[in-house]
Amino acid sequence: MNAPTPAAHLAPEIAQRAVPEAFVTALKARFGNNCSTALVIREQHGRDESAFTHVPPPAAVVFAENTQDVADAVKLCAEHKVPVIPFGVGSSLEGHLLAVQGGISIDLTRMNKVLSINAEDLTVTVQPGVTRKQLNDEIKSTGLFFPIDPGADATIGGMSATRASGTNAVRYGTMRENVLALEVVTSSGEVIRTGTRAKKSSAGYDLTRLMVGSEGTLGVMTEITVRLYPLPEAISAAICSFPSIEAAVHTVIQTIQLGVPIARVELIDHNTVRMVNAYAKLGLREEPMLLMEFHGSPAGVKEQAETVQEIASEFGGNAFEWAVTPEERTRLWTARHNAYFAAIQSKPGCRAISTDTCVPISRLADCLLDSITETDASGIPYFLVGHVGDGNFHFGYLIDPNNPQECETAEALNQQLVSRALRLGGTCTGEHGIGLHKMDFLRTETGEGAVDMMRTIKRALDPHNIMNPGKIFSM
Amino acid sequence: MNAPTPAAHLAPEIAQRAVPEAFVTALKARFGNNCSTALVIREQHGRDESAFTHVPPPAAVVFAENTQDVADAVKLCAEHKVPVIPFGVGSSLEGHLLAVQGGISIDLTRMNKVLSINAEDLTVTVQPGVTRKQLNDEIKSTGLFFPIDPGADATIGGMSATRASGTNAVRYGTMRENVLALEVVTSSGEVIRTGTRAKKSSAGYDLTRLMVGSEGTLGVMTEITVRLYPLPEAISAAICSFPSIEAAVHTVIQTIQLGVPIARVELIDHNTVRMVNAYAKLGLREEPMLLMEFHGSPAGVKEQAETVQEIASEFGGNAFEWAVTPEERTRLWTARHNAYFAAIQSKPGCRAISTDTCVPISRLADCLLDSITETDASGIPYFLVGHVGDGNFHFGYLIDPNNPQECETAEALNQQLVSRALRLGGTCTGEHGIGLHKMDFLRTETGEGAVDMMRTIKRALDPHNIMNPGKIFSM
Repeated sequence: MNAPTPAAHLAPEIAQRAVPEAFVTALKARFGNNCSTALVIREQHGRDESAFTHVPPPAAVVFAENTQDVADAVKLCAEHKVPVIPFGVGSSLEGHLLAVQGGISIDLTRMNKVLSINAEDLTVTVQPGVTRKQLNDEIKSTGLFFPIDPGADATIGGMSATRASGTNAVRYGTMRENVLALEVVTSSGEVIRTGTRAKKSSAGYDLTRLMVGSEGTLGVMTEITVRLYPLPEAISAAICSFPSIEAAVHTVIQTIQLGVPIARVELIDHNTVRMVNAYAKLGLREEPMLLMEFHGSPAGVKEQAETVQEIASEFGGNAFEWAVTPEERTRLWTARHNAYFAAIQSKPGCRAISTDTCVPISRLADCLLDSITETDASGIPYFLVGHVGDGNFHFGYLIDPNNPQECETAEALNQQLVSRALRLGGTCTGEHGIGLHKMDFLRTETGEGAVDMMRTIKRALDPHNIMNPGKIFSM
Repeated sequence: MNAPTPAAHLAPEIAQRAVPEAFVTALKARFGNNCSTALVIREQHGRDESAFTHVPPPAAVVFAENTQDVADAVKLCAEHKVPVIPFGVGSSLEGHLLAVQGGISIDLTRMNKVLSINAEDLTVTVQPGVTRKQLNDEIKSTGLFFPIDPGADATIGGMSATRASGTNAVRYGTMRENVLALEVVTSSGEVIRTGTRAKKSSAGYDLTRLMVGSEGTLGVMTEITVRLYPLPEAISAAICSFPSIEAAVHTVIQTIQLGVPIARVELIDHNTVRMVNAYAKLGLREEPMLLMEFHGSPAGVKEQAETVQEIASEFGGNAFEWAVTPEERTRLWTARHNAYFAAIQSKPGCRAISTDTCVPISRLADCLLDSITETDASGIPYFLVGHVGDGNFHFGYLIDPNNPQECETAEALNQQLVSRALRLGGTCTGEHGIGLHKMDFLRTETGEGAVDMMRTIKRALDPHNIMNPGKIFSM
């Protein structure tokens, strides 16, 4: 991080509150070696994958080992009115983890136990520090899997806090649909439970879904119950190259409109295919492509694939190339997930500013094509990938953080893109969250009335504004 | 309603607030003929399908024709601190519509326009007074349908307010999963918007899902955007009779655990089959039965049905009897939906007290079988139906409302059932809501901490407690 003059929008408003000496003393007395004030530890917890720079790290890091630890840490914070930021693996793209108002970080990675696997009910209860890959490893023998896949090997806690989704969401939904129940430490350090393991309920306010996506601003999740799914009897993955982005996108739109239960359908533009080829030594055809996966019975998978091949052919798509074995599939999806790193490597020293708009499926072509034209005209290099079955895609603008001009251009492109998505009935963030960067966009998207209602809820549930303050909206 | 001495639990706490004369005058001045104080109109709006008796009707009924009407009515209520109860078709089973604290009813049935059909995006935006059957009629030409089906031809507003579900929820989810966006009049009469038409979003607090299921206590929904689904290429419905409830339930459990995407799977016990036969002149075999529907491609539907038939056979189920034509299917599902009326007719003058527990699927047999034994032993006649694919089922205890002993017995049975469901990790209400009757159950289910959080939110968003007060929890 050596940008001396970052663009204004990458330097968030910093208003650090005092951290009383008595608080640090009490914290150390309670947590001993599980509380660190070493600079290197604090710096590790003072950054994430966002492009934000120049935020001082938290004053201390508490390594929580159980719910009581979290409750006690939050109680001390409440007593001394010190901000508290839950921390998983640090894969946020929106500055969620930055201590813009000071305070402490609670590292939840030691709370990484799978607490109970209820295979017969297709549910599992985990601590927040369990990562999605760890979870899938630990339930392997059950024949079930947890589908939500945001790319990074994020924690279930972090994924819940940002309402994450990813490549499988088109079929299996997002964290919104897949979190059933929570244990939460509130801003006063009280432990509450929301939801049950029943698949549905009409029992009062949906506190579970209020917490999911609240970005740590209403409480710290300490147990999370999520839905699991039977591993499909058959899985097949295919690549299809297209003469144009437009042809690929129209194939997706028609597939969704026909109700084909496709499990994954990812768009990668020709430019990004080239980067991935260079990075992963693949020989993919350097044209816009869809990377698809079909889940179901053998006959069902075959039927879905035939339907989509037929649609693709109508739009000039090539014959599907199949990845049949698990190894081939893993290689393909790893290539997809490495698009980010491939892109970063294509411009040494760059940082990627990732967009995250999501629009109703019928508007996907309009939104995407105009934005590509605009971005091409800007001269900023970029990668482009998308969970297009949901209408969600990401440009990654590759900027030199030392070049304010590039930062400004990227920001202008993002603003134009978000405005377009909102005009088309979409959202500024499909899955990354608001964090620091999209607060203005949120106001435009949902209106002052709704943001005021969010503020009112925040004020009621966190009267001292200690839970990850300065994120989602200003108070 | 002629019960002179209802059981205590059917006589809710009534604490009617004063309705100032100046308020009624202002209301009449603003709404003219669209505001009625006629007793017959008020009485129509002072009851629902619950077993509650003896609640005085609201002081006035406003027939709202648009969002501005709702906003103006709520503003007047806010000014004079008068309670306001949104009213659809009055099909609540839990006393949601009763004016236990006085105030006015806002009848939303004139707000019954389908505002925009976005067939390409599989979404539709409606006013709250549109009923589910009307909606499906109006979108018939699009090849899409709205699957949520709570039995009654309820309004989309009422269904959203109670987080309704019904027979198709096992495949298509509940109102929780299917409401995308809302326009809401808040307790101050302000109009806000939540959500967008994008399929997913991480944009701030999930106000949409906070409103869904809030039973009118946080605001009045004035526009609702819901998801639609392509009409399946093939639909087939089948009946399967079983030697015992246990066999039927285990068939369901295994079907769900295998991930068969069954669209509907309803349990009807032998006793209820007998009632339905008598009511609808059907010749169904008077044994426990599953009523199933399969949606998909012709091959997919065949494959699903074969899998389930195989499971059923293992548990001693008979060969499926098929309803192939739309007319045969409609006849079957009408019989299912008429179970309530068939049961009521079997005991003249009775009322049905409906239970609504929902448990994790693996506990369904335990929960159901013990409850049947208990209910049989009580001597109270009952019907038993269930959306068993979701672990949700309903006993309907058929009681003479003039017989306090029967009321007490039914209440005791319900309490035992709910306690059992909660012990098994379930919920006291799968789809009917809390309303008046289940407030104690909610506290037991979710704990005081979560109910306190609900109260805190309610207090923050409705400081004068005018939005359908006295429901879900006491303040």
